[in-house]
Amino acid sequence: MEARLVLTLSCPDTTGIVARIAGFLADAGGWIVEAGYHSDPTTGWFFTRQVVRADSLPYGLDELRERFGAVAAEIGPQARWTVTDATVPKKAVLLVSKEAHCLHDLLGRAATGELPVRIEAVVGNHEPLGGIVRAHGVPFHHVPFPGPSDPRREAGKVAAFEQVRELVDVHEPDAIVLARFMQVLPAHLCERWAGRALNIHHSFLPSFAGARPYHQAHARGVKLIGATCHYVTSDLDAGPIVEQDVTRVDHGDTVEDMVRRGRDIERLVLARGLRWHLEDRVLVEGNKTVVFR
Amino acid sequence: MEARLVLTLSCPDTTGIVARIAGFLADAGGWIVEAGYHSDPTTGWFFTRQVVRADSLPYGLDELRERFGAVAAEIGPQARWTVTDATVPKKAVLLVSKEAHCLHDLLGRAATGELPVRIEAVVGNHEPLGGIVRAHGVPFHHVPFPGPSDPRREAGKVAAFEQVRELVDVHEPDAIVLARFMQVLPAHLCERWAGRALNIHHSFLPSFAGARPYHQAHARGVKLIGATCHYVTSDLDAGPIVEQDVTRVDHGDTVEDMVRRGRDIERLVLARGLRWHLEDRVLVEGNKTVVFR
Amino acid sequence: MEARLVLTLSCPDTTGIVARIAGFLADAGGWIVEAGYHSDPTTGWFFTRQVVRADSLPYGLDELRERFGAVAAEIGPQARWTVTDATVPKKAVLLVSKEAHCLHDLLGRAATGELPVRIEAVVGNHEPLGGIVRAHGVPFHHVPFPGPSDPRREAGKVAAFEQVRELVDVHEPDAIVLARFMQVLPAHLCERWAGRALNIHHSFLPSFAGARPYHQAHARGVKLIGATCHYVTSDLDAGPIVEQDVTRVDHGDTVEDMVRRGRDIERLVLARGLRWHLEDRVLVEGNKTVVFR
Amino acid sequence: MEARLVLTLSCPDTTGIVARIAGFLADAGGWIVEAGYHSDPTTGWFFTRQVVRADSLPYGLDELRERFGAVAAEIGPQARWTVTDATVPKKAVLLVSKEAHCLHDLLGRAATGELPVRIEAVVGNHEPLGGIVRAHGVPFHHVPFPGPSDPRREAGKVAAFEQVRELVDVHEPDAIVLARFMQVLPAHLCERWAGRALNIHHSFLPSFAGARPYHQAHARGVKLIGATCHYVTSDLDAGPIVEQDVTRVDHGDTVEDMVRRGRDIERLVLARGLRWHLEDRVLVEGNKTVVFR
Repeated sequence: MEARLVLTLSCPDTTGIVARIAGFLADAGGWIVEAGYHSDPTTGWFFTRQVVRADSLPYGLDELRERFGAVAAEIGPQARWTVTDATVPKKAVLLVSKEAHCLHDLLGRAATGELPVRIEAVVGNHEPLGGIVRAHGVPFHHVPFPGPSDPRREAGKVAAFEQVRELVDVHEPDAIVLARFMQVLPAHLCERWAGRALNIHHSFLPSFAGARPYHQAHARGVKLIGATCHYVTSDLDAGPIVEQDVTRVDHGDTVEDMVRRGRDIERLVLARGLRWHLEDRVLVEGNKTVVFR
Repeated sequence: MEARLVLTLSCPDTTGIVARIAGFLADAGGWIVEAGYHSDPTTGWFFTRQVVRADSLPYGLDELRERFGAVAAEIGPQARWTVTDATVPKKAVLLVSKEAHCLHDLLGRAATGELPVRIEAVVGNHEPLGGIVRAHGVPFHHVPFPGPSDPRREAGKVAAFEQVRELVDVHEPDAIVLARFMQVLPAHLCERWAGRALNIHHSFLPSFAGARPYHQAHARGVKLIGATCHYVTSDLDAGPIVEQDVTRVDHGDTVEDMVRRGRDIERLVLARGLRWHLEDRVLVEGNKTVVFR
Repeated sequence: MEARLVLTLSCPDTTGIVARIAGFLADAGGWIVEAGYHSDPTTGWFFTRQVVRADSLPYGLDELRERFGAVAAEIGPQARWTVTDATVPKKAVLLVSKEAHCLHDLLGRAATGELPVRIEAVVGNHEPLGGIVRAHGVPFHHVPFPGPSDPRREAGKVAAFEQVRELVDVHEPDAIVLARFMQVLPAHLCERWAGRALNIHHSFLPSFAGARPYHQAHARGVKLIGATCHYVTSDLDAGPIVEQDVTRVDHGDTVEDMVRRGRDIERLVLARGLRWHLEDRVLVEGNKTVVFR
Repeated sequence: MEARLVLTLSCPDTTGIVARIAGFLADAGGWIVEAGYHSDPTTGWFFTRQVVRADSLPYGLDELRERFGAVAAEIGPQARWTVTDATVPKKAVLLVSKEAHCLHDLLGRAATGELPVRIEAVVGNHEPLGGIVRAHGVPFHHVPFPGPSDPRREAGKVAAFEQVRELVDVHEPDAIVLARFMQVLPAHLCERWAGRALNIHHSFLPSFAGARPYHQAHARGVKLIGATCHYVTSDLDAGPIVEQDVTRVDHGDTVEDMVRRGRDIERLVLARGLRWHLEDRVLVEGNKTVVFR
């Protein structure tokens, strides 16, 4: 694939924005290979993502960033924008616990080049997963978390999260992926990693938020179970949803069967949500997302 | 299709029930063409549905009922059972309001023979739908309900529901279908029609119970919307779920788009749930269902 | 909904087309509420569909058509374009045979306003469907086709098709819908109605083209069956595909079960394909389609 | 999970088979926890799969096998049957080439215990995959296959397949999985491994059999792409289908996008098909399968 540059912009909507951006690109000879637009009638905001062939432009990433920044500034002070090089893999750090299915899946996808990502490190509180992680050439950091019966549990969690923070931040990752990490992030980390931390919740939110969602689903007798990939916010399981999917269950499925079936959905939903995030396809709008697939 | 007789049975599980039923059928020369079994490890109950070729038995429906009743009595006092003739269409009465998509769909399916049902009557509080109903050869009864600003609203609703009850009960229907009937059934009708009244709710329950589910879904930014067919109980939108399904939406979908997309799911989910009910495929187990599809 | 005008354009791709169109609309104050773009790397063609609020423009449909035509002419001689008013329902004529499920479905969707269409007439070779059609206020024309044992079958078919052609063409319809019309259109009608005639085929093409697709699917033991909505061309079941979908079957499904399950997919796929066609979302590209959903 | 024993039987259908088997199990106190039955009206064959709690029986696997064999013999000379212990993981050998996504997926599922399998070995013609395989504690055998330009290609393939056969057969595996193994098995190996060799084909068969199915799908402009897991027979891509699934694509998807999207389906379909095979849920019936899910 030839190099591609990706521009995103969101701002209050008004006539002429598309023309302004398209004109800017056309003046430079920019060849647009992919373009998404969304005008939200509820909020009055406009969103766009454009992909340009790098070799069609007379200048490189830095100058495009500078020039597009000037265009965005003209469009208005509220405009938020990004310019990135799609051929440079983004950096991710994974947080995991005991459940390994999403970890295996993401390592496999990174290895085959299916995800445009460099997994910088995996941080986990369950040592045995280290072997496979390292076999993929990725450093594994074991950070034990205090158990429910630990008398100094709160202090221990604070210390553990401080260690996690350091192990994550040293990489300045584009994505922090909670790949079935069973600890609730403290508010200051939600804040610090806002818009970069992705979680996979094992239910079709808003149904069955919180603990043991498959048990809840089994008790209610639903006919489909699901999973949700969302940005982490300090409001548990309530951040902007990036992707969801479901699979069919029936009366013959025990909770254990649901757990097993659910894993297939968790894997897929997290992998899709992460890919879209890495490809700058996800623009956050309040507590919702615009996803240019 | 040759005539088929359908047996269902549910009872506390124990060794030998399958053998007892299979032996009973084999002794009479019964040819089983379809059989479903479910043993619930949580409740310890057993459920079965069996379809037998009528021409393989030396006796008819009534005698089968009598004999199978005796077998069920031997199995235990808690055993619940049914024996029906699948070639005799069941009877249904539909309750509707303004939204006509489920009504059109069910009338069409009845007309083409796709649903094994005779629609005895349609009761609605919106006169204009009468024309099409009557064109299908089905009586339409207009029962106006008092609006929100009516000073005698409560009394008016009681009277209207009494009228609905009479129009329904005269047919002794096997199914009372709330096909987007926007009124909440009073508790005594939920009780009276328990196990026969099916509702279609326009969300993937338990998410977005109550009013305006598509608005709720839009506000939350979910990526799939759904519909749920459930038995009506006095606990609003909380009865045993018979069938559910979902369809994908994205950021570009307004509430109106969701309403439109949702209709396709409502139609399908109600039609499937109703068919399974009519074919004695649904056995209720507490607040859940066993569906032998 | 406020009035909306819809523009489509396809042409060989080159730098600056998006800017040219966006600039044209911005100069007139046009408020774009929906925009789709596609650049095909294989063929080198560009496709776009834009929806503009009518009240944001200083002129009406006719002048927009004239002005946009001038822009398209500048873009190049190969450019194909349309400008339509989305608030004016398009006109359709349905061709049907005995199978009524798609007919019932489309009549219902037209009645509820779900499809932006005025069904001008239904032409069928099976008189009994006339009653329901007329109950919907739509004229029904009965055109008998000669059966397989008719000695003058070929001549009879030529005459019948000539009658169908007249009954269709008098309405100058935007869509001619073969809603399970079991006759193969002669080449001259395929040609005459090119880009306007939509068929629903009851298989997931290219599998099981031709006769009795459910029998073919059953014999092969596939685990999903499907349906395909495509533009009619003289090459049977091989025209540009607009929409497809599938549903799960298993070893327990007889051919009759597949026929029944398949109907749900046929209904949905035809309704979606027709809606997209009516909303100018489908642009044909050789034997493929671009669908701006 | 307590130990479970699995019985399967297929034979020409006749009255009383269910009673015979159920009576046999009831006489021994057998507690049936799962039961599937299928009576095929086309072929006149009967199929069943039953799962019994081991601790409910007064004897073990070997005696059950002996006694059930006697029952099957009474039922008739054509009866085919199996009795296995579900708590003993089955053995599999994987054959792979360069494409690693199915390999990674199956290794991950085996590692997490999601698949009831012991992967005995992986045989591949692409050395670099060895590292990850060995990190999972599984032996990797590199068997190079001659390329298309090799002058002694045919002889080289014969020798390579002979080596593969030996590496596979030494394990007496219950499943030989062609996990995107790009070589066509010679007829004698299809014969030798009949009913045990599973392939994943990257199309929704029977569409796009043979080479480069995603290219074929792209050229035809289909709106869904799929994958098929089937038993290998000497008739290429035409063996009994175990599982299939599809995913949506659109005009914006290049062949490369389809390859990427398709991988998700290939992974899922192969993992499902393999699990069903390992759990004795798949009974072959001519060129079709009965799958008791």
